[in-house]
Amino acid sequence: MKIKILTLFPNMISGFLNDSILKRAIDNQVCSIELIDMRQYSLDKHHHVDDTPCGGGAGMVLACDVVDRAIEANASEATYKILMTPQGRPYQQHIAKELSSMEELLIICGHYEGFDERIRSYVDDEISIGDYVLTGGELAAAVITDSVIRLLDHAIRKESSEDDSFSNGFLEYPQYTRPIEYKGKTVPEVLLNGNHKLIREFRLKESIRKTYLRRPDLLENRELTSEEMRYLNEVKKEEASQ
Amino acid sequence: MKIKILTLFPNMISGFLNDSILKRAIDNQVCSIELIDMRQYSLDKHHHVDDTPCGGGAGMVLACDVVDRAIEANASEATYKILMTPQGRPYQQHIAKELSSMEELLIICGHYEGFDERIRSYVDDEISIGDYVLTGGELAAAVITDSVIRLLDHAIRKESSEDDSFSNGFLEYPQYTRPIEYKGKTVPEVLLNGNHKLIREFRLKESIRKTYLRRPDLLENRELTSEEMRYLNEVKKEEASQ
Repeated sequence: MKIKILTLFPNMISGFLNDSILKRAIDNQVCSIELIDMRQYSLDKHHHVDDTPCGGGAGMVLACDVVDRAIEANASEATYKILMTPQGRPYQQHIAKELSSMEELLIICGHYEGFDERIRSYVDDEISIGDYVLTGGELAAAVITDSVIRLLDHAIRKESSEDDSFSNGFLEYPQYTRPIEYKGKTVPEVLLNGNHKLIREFRLKESIRKTYLRRPDLLENRELTSEEMRYLNEVKKEEASQ
Repeated sequence: MKIKILTLFPNMISGFLNDSILKRAIDNQVCSIELIDMRQYSLDKHHHVDDTPCGGGAGMVLACDVVDRAIEANASEATYKILMTPQGRPYQQHIAKELSSMEELLIICGHYEGFDERIRSYVDDEISIGDYVLTGGELAAAVITDSVIRLLDHAIRKESSEDDSFSNGFLEYPQYTRPIEYKGKTVPEVLLNGNHKLIREFRLKESIRKTYLRRPDLLENRELTSEEMRYLNEVKKEEASQ
């Protein structure tokens, strides 16, 4: 997979490509990532990429012609073009899965107070990583890149990502590791006895408990199996009697 | 404001501190940011910070004793301690505002497949930046830092952040800048005539239209003024007749 990121601040995200899973994926040729400075597509001799908003107001607005030229120069027919904006569709794990099957992504980071509305017509998708405001789309582009490459890397290494939060519609079950006892708090007994059936049941039930207590909205979007339903009812009773 | 970030991959986020608004805020002493490598709090001679999960399963789990020592060494009474996790409360702009009033934040990045459940009891808050899975909490910590410092920076520079998406409960109105005409697409006439009353009305109505079309869920959480209600009704009629 090829990922190209159009940005005004390549330095802001170059660091995160050099560490951890992303570096491994790049080294293993699972994917290539290219950071492209949009400034080079300004025809202005001072390389301006923005201007004041029509109709007045604070801040600067990213100009449509610069972005259009940058896209033209870097996209092919196979390229899926994504604009990062707080007004896009909310990013979720199922979108990460969709994107991980693409051949080539072109991610466009906005910046400054906003971007010219006409830019929307140049892209295939608009994505928001959440209901908050960032200084630009760089971190958002990094989030997309990280979550997508993580799935590719797991696929290559034949590791499961099924235990992740959201991957099965529930939050992840509680994890523990050594020390078994630390400052009076211990690992639950069931995880230490090697009974895989009991461990599986414990994890599923605690996963459901966590989802019920913290994110009941996730349960509304999911059909439950009869085993899951039984645990949900047990959890509800237990929590009500607390 | 002081922000400390506990991480296993300081290089992953150091880049984004050196650019743009964050650098300006640090230079202007609006805030200080410190990246702290958690590895130094491992007592193990190989600086291990993780171990296999109790009960079996893939991946490595961040150990509670390492994190406990890292927090003890870096938090004071005034410190608000936040754990980045997909299981936390969903981050939203109003949380950014809350956090921007704190004196000192300590942000703990998870990494690997997960972290020991006991770590939850060491923090004041657990935050998720969205319903997707990242390789670690580093990008999530960067998102928090960026959104919070942006508010501080605006406050210092006495700029308004009221026009931002989510700040008034709606998505932001469409922005335009020069060129006025580009490849057949033009800036709406109303923004060019200098009538501030009409411009304000256009922006409010288009802000409501965008929210209605893209994120109707945001309208449910907000009481509308009579002016806003009037525009919402107009928008509904216009969109229905399209």
